[in-house]
Amino acid sequence: MDLKYAIVGVGGIGGYYGGKLAYNNKDVHFLLHSDYEYVKNFGLRIESIHGNFALPTPQIYQNADEMPPSDVIFVCLKTTQNNQLKKILQPITHKDSLVILIQNGLGIEEDLQIEFPSLSIAGGLAFIGSSKVGPGHIHHQDQGALNIGSYSVKDKNRLIQVIADLKESGIAAHEIDLKVARWKKLVWNIPYNGLSVVLDAKTDRLTSNPYSRELLKRMMHEVIEASRQMELSEEIPESFAEFMIATTEKMSAYAPSMKLDYDFNRALEIDYIYTRPLIEAQKRGIQMPTVATIEQQLRFITTSQKN
Amino acid sequence: MDLKYAIVGVGGIGGYYGGKLAYNNKDVHFLLHSDYEYVKNFGLRIESIHGNFALPTPQIYQNADEMPPSDVIFVCLKTTQNNQLKKILQPITHKDSLVILIQNGLGIEEDLQIEFPSLSIAGGLAFIGSSKVGPGHIHHQDQGALNIGSYSVKDKNRLIQVIADLKESGIAAHEIDLKVARWKKLVWNIPYNGLSVVLDAKTDRLTSNPYSRELLKRMMHEVIEASRQMELSEEIPESFAEFMIATTEKMSAYAPSMKLDYDFNRALEIDYIYTRPLIEAQKRGIQMPTVATIEQQLRFITTSQKN
Repeated sequence: MDLKYAIVGVGGIGGYYGGKLAYNNKDVHFLLHSDYEYVKNFGLRIESIHGNFALPTPQIYQNADEMPPSDVIFVCLKTTQNNQLKKILQPITHKDSLVILIQNGLGIEEDLQIEFPSLSIAGGLAFIGSSKVGPGHIHHQDQGALNIGSYSVKDKNRLIQVIADLKESGIAAHEIDLKVARWKKLVWNIPYNGLSVVLDAKTDRLTSNPYSRELLKRMMHEVIEASRQMELSEEIPESFAEFMIATTEKMSAYAPSMKLDYDFNRALEIDYIYTRPLIEAQKRGIQMPTVATIEQQLRFITTSQKN
Repeated sequence: MDLKYAIVGVGGIGGYYGGKLAYNNKDVHFLLHSDYEYVKNFGLRIESIHGNFALPTPQIYQNADEMPPSDVIFVCLKTTQNNQLKKILQPITHKDSLVILIQNGLGIEEDLQIEFPSLSIAGGLAFIGSSKVGPGHIHHQDQGALNIGSYSVKDKNRLIQVIADLKESGIAAHEIDLKVARWKKLVWNIPYNGLSVVLDAKTDRLTSNPYSRELLKRMMHEVIEASRQMELSEEIPESFAEFMIATTEKMSAYAPSMKLDYDFNRALEIDYIYTRPLIEAQKRGIQMPTVATIEQQLRFITTSQKN
């Protein structure tokens, strides 16, 4: 059976993964907002390090109500827009739909499950440098892997088929343990995202300066300590912090997503990247004092108006 | 016996206190640098909420070598210039001189004592809003008290006479317990100075925003906790944090000294306001995690160049 896909959020992530599936003749339906008219006239265009391609007439919609119910829904919105998810998903899911949240942070699946108690939910972690550079225009400049793990998937074959479809479409897709993967990604996301905003710096300056490097390490160790109380199937070793820093050091300088959000005056994903991990840690008696400090600074920055 | 005074550092603090003493006909010798020529021609001018006054021909010097040895030396430099102190004080002290360090932070007296093992040293804490607004031009806009406490004063009468001279000259001077006073001042200085730089905000925004207020409180409590391990003659109560915040709330918005230093591209007093208290706390097994985070951020800001 061929799967019907829906892509909610057609930015760097949704545009690339959805575009690759559609270009491989999968049945993909894109939900667009501001870019709808442009894409209707000119299609989607993906510039990629793996080869450029275009979709002149993708299946696009301006409202979720007009879309067909889909078997697999990729949610590629920023988590700051998740308050819209209930309304969007209602018309496009059926009883066997699988929703994959390709988003950053902790507790996203849990919150969605409360809204849709019987829905099959998975989480996706994109290891990709890809961004929307104009209407219907995606620029994929680095990596591309997509790791997916079950949160409450009822039909495991569905997940296997999605991964097969992605691979067939040229995407390095893997099934992973979601909880471990979410915490591992937090080890990087928590220090780099917040510090890049508070200290107005990209990854290179944060990693090379001895003082911020010390802060990065301290935050990573706080996150790793907390992760050890989460009954993960696999323990994150302390050495993972050094490994993450060394890996970042080898990459070219870039602005973490929260820094881009800040620079473009978009809402910051503080809730799921900071507050939720802090709450989960506190429930288990673990403080993350440096992480908590950065969270408060981010809250200050986003709520205090200069005179 | 009339005391001979030397003022090292003729900015908002030294210019005001030294100016008041000189205006009251005390024997005051000012060490000037960049303003020497201007003051030689036009004198010192102090605009004060307590009444304006001028000193047309103050006793001024361009080099410490040309100054007479003094009985009392007020050091009113930023602590970032304390590496010059040995050279400056050598020619202007005699065996009974009293040096009063009117500076912020912890460990300043200890460091000076290492350079001059037999010198009488006191610390001064200025509660004043006063700044140099032009060459030889001081603007005193708020408060004015000067609290002085012995660090290693051999002749207590000398200190009593200084306080009497100051009072006679119109300054609210008091003798205090230096160690208690230094720690109490840190309760305010540590949170407000660093956060004002890192978050680019004056006292009003830091105090009113709920997130930065939470950070201020957390840092104040960390400092109070640390102070309790310092064998102070008087315990700083936990309620002192709330009192400091409430007091700041009633004052008009202002930029802490470190914020002014940062805005005017001057070196920041991180060593004595942050690093030294952190070291003293660590020696006693106390961590101040929020304070340590802000210290690292300040170090980053002052050492990392933007590309």
